[in-house]
Amino acid sequence: MKLYVNFQIPKDVEEALEKVFAVTRDAAPDVDAALVVNISPEELEKMPRLRFIQVATAGLDHLPWSHIPPHVTVAGNAGSNADAVTEFAIALLLAAYKKVLKYAEKMRRGDYNRDIAIPQVAGSKIAVLGVGEIGSRVARVLSLLGAEVWAFARSPREGPWRFTNSLEDALRRASAAVCALPLNKTTANLVKYDHLALMREEAVFVNVGRAEVIDRSGLLKILRERPSFMYVSDVWWSRGDFSKDSEFYSMPNVVATPWVAGGYGSVEVWHKMMRQAAENVMTWALGGQPRNVAKREDYES
Amino acid sequence: MKLYVNFQIPKDVEEALEKVFAVTRDAAPDVDAALVVNISPEELEKMPRLRFIQVATAGLDHLPWSHIPPHVTVAGNAGSNADAVTEFAIALLLAAYKKVLKYAEKMRRGDYNRDIAIPQVAGSKIAVLGVGEIGSRVARVLSLLGAEVWAFARSPREGPWRFTNSLEDALRRASAAVCALPLNKTTANLVKYDHLALMREEAVFVNVGRAEVIDRSGLLKILRERPSFMYVSDVWWSRGDFSKDSEFYSMPNVVATPWVAGGYGSVEVWHKMMRQAAENVMTWALGGQPRNVAKREDYES
Repeated sequence: MKLYVNFQIPKDVEEALEKVFAVTRDAAPDVDAALVVNISPEELEKMPRLRFIQVATAGLDHLPWSHIPPHVTVAGNAGSNADAVTEFAIALLLAAYKKVLKYAEKMRRGDYNRDIAIPQVAGSKIAVLGVGEIGSRVARVLSLLGAEVWAFARSPREGPWRFTNSLEDALRRASAAVCALPLNKTTANLVKYDHLALMREEAVFVNVGRAEVIDRSGLLKILRERPSFMYVSDVWWSRGDFSKDSEFYSMPNVVATPWVAGGYGSVEVWHKMMRQAAENVMTWALGGQPRNVAKREDYES
Repeated sequence: MKLYVNFQIPKDVEEALEKVFAVTRDAAPDVDAALVVNISPEELEKMPRLRFIQVATAGLDHLPWSHIPPHVTVAGNAGSNADAVTEFAIALLLAAYKKVLKYAEKMRRGDYNRDIAIPQVAGSKIAVLGVGEIGSRVARVLSLLGAEVWAFARSPREGPWRFTNSLEDALRRASAAVCALPLNKTTANLVKYDHLALMREEAVFVNVGRAEVIDRSGLLKILRERPSFMYVSDVWWSRGDFSKDSEFYSMPNVVATPWVAGGYGSVEVWHKMMRQAAENVMTWALGGQPRNVAKREDYES
């Protein structure tokens, strides 16, 4: 079987793939499967026999869905970066919520006043939006810290939290929220001004999913109205071209990082993602059941 | 029974105490017990009938031990701020270890380069020094995040960690350490240059216990020698007079906060501490077994 790869993968991953596939860098007519970060309509057109696309990233929102024929199976890579993103989500939340960023900056300036009250995680309502591989881990850590965790998702999932499929119920009077929702048709622009306004006056909203889940103008509005409301995010609408969202980074109630929670912040994590993606496409080739198969209807418009 | 209180306590706590005690602000000869943050030799001399001292803070290192008669029982308040300090310890660790502080500062400056590698907690060796109320909770969270936790203490304690009573074994090749040791005769100046030098080149050392557990000059030495070694601390030798340790705060590999992890950073936590201290002194008065009774030999010189 022939596997098309259109980006650089680690040597050990390529060697593993070669045990199962003839690996090629050419989008040729006899290609059966593809391992990609993204794929263009032009590439797709050159591979009429293609039956399986393995995407190396957890998210699948960036694919040209309308150009992928219905008989092609698409698998994502959820879980491969979940440990890393979970750690980063907790880091972002606690750095802001526990006022570490503010006190560290004050101390550096020689201001030793203890004039910022530090809220507690234990006993506070914290919403976790999305309880997939990342959200469920984040929720478990917050639960261990004694938070009253409300988990929001489409479908119920059991765990040490109170489940709801109402975004309003999850966010109402919450002290903090961590968003780990995937971006798809049902989540695009889901979180609006009115939802954020339901949270407590001094709430911290953390985003490690996708920026596009948040209504950009609604977020700007609440950040301008409520100096005590904090938005802490690793993901931006501009994706890699961060300058386009720079109006956020300079706001005093925003903490920004440049999309580094997962594979873009660590070669080690990136390699782990590649290994898991390679395993999944080999599972498919050997007749097994691949993981993270996408529901097309979540993405097709 | 008469209870001497020498600092301001919340009204509800005072009302609760008055159900059991005659509460006084005078160090009178007929006082049976004292509820204090600290007590002076002069106060002690005025209360010859004193049999019990309840300290409102978790640490007991600041008491004038040589002036406390052997027949007086001293109880601390460990656990009362443990949730808060645990949250802060994890916040300090992850803010530094996951490079949130560095990336947030870069983004604010308009530097969007992803040129700082982010290490993982999962799979890394992390030492927890002290596995009391705080250390054991910190260790549980790190274990849930997938860290290989090494717990160091005098006496073994069971949990999701590898226990050792060798400080060298705990710190050798560790990626990070969280110190939650109490300060007493056995821990004063315990952690020296040679111990810190056993850790990985880019290790992060977090302190939420007492500064005096660390050899100050040894720490300064390693911070000057290894720019990649980070010291992240809420506690300082100067205690409340932070300016005396300002040489640390301006170092690029130090993150400092002004002793705010527990009761000094949150009125809510302080009140909780007062309630627990009041309950303990009432337990003693009613003939029960008070918690956190100090071992004098740990403190007497």
